[in-house]
Amino acid sequence: MANIYDSAYDLEKAIRGSEEFQNLKSAYDAVMADESAKQMFDNFRNTQMELQEKQMQGQEITEKEVEKARQVVELVQQHEDISKLMEEEQRLNVVINDVSRIITKPLEELYGNPDNESNE
Amino acid sequence: MANIYDSAYDLEKAIRGSEEFQNLKSAYDAVMADESAKQMFDNFRNTQMELQEKQMQGQEITEKEVEKARQVVELVQQHEDISKLMEEEQRLNVVINDVSRIITKPLEELYGNPDNESNE
Repeated sequence: MANIYDSAYDLEKAIRGSEEFQNLKSAYDAVMADESAKQMFDNFRNTQMELQEKQMQGQEITEKEVEKARQVVELVQQHEDISKLMEEEQRLNVVINDVSRIITKPLEELYGNPDNESNE
Repeated sequence: MANIYDSAYDLEKAIRGSEEFQNLKSAYDAVMADESAKQMFDNFRNTQMELQEKQMQGQEITEKEVEKARQVVELVQQHEDISKLMEEEQRLNVVINDVSRIITKPLEELYGNPDNESNE
């Protein structure tokens, strides 16, 4: 039986070496290398995080804020490098979510099924 | 380079087969097999989740609720099987948090360090 930490480090290496991560890194580097793209992307990120924080704290989000966020998204989507970066983020996110689902399965089975004692 | 999904399934197997998970499972099964312990544990869980939900929605938690939660925790801590279960949960949690930190390191390095392009 492999050790959990050994397996986790193997998985980390696999993620780091994956096409998905390498493509994300290239897309990220391209945006960071372009000062105006970088600023646009940072602005987008900050707007997103502000809204998320408000949502998590149960604060109401105004029409005006929704409209501003929509405009920022529209703007970055028109920027080729940023929209490429967002695409690659989305792609890696799918993989990371799958990974998370796979490795939390033992716990989910245990807590999700009160009759688990009969499954041994 | 190992495939991400293969590595994730290996990690899942390692978690499932680990002493930490097997001990947790035994502790969980012991509580579930005892109707009064099960009820006490369910009550504890529900109280925790209610408070968490309130917190996440930014609702205020009253003194009375804090006191009730404290009493429920005290009660379950006095129950040998439940306190054993909570100990094992805590132990596996540490491992799972470590795992999560390990596998999100590539992303953290990428987004946490604006000068990453010089690290290649």
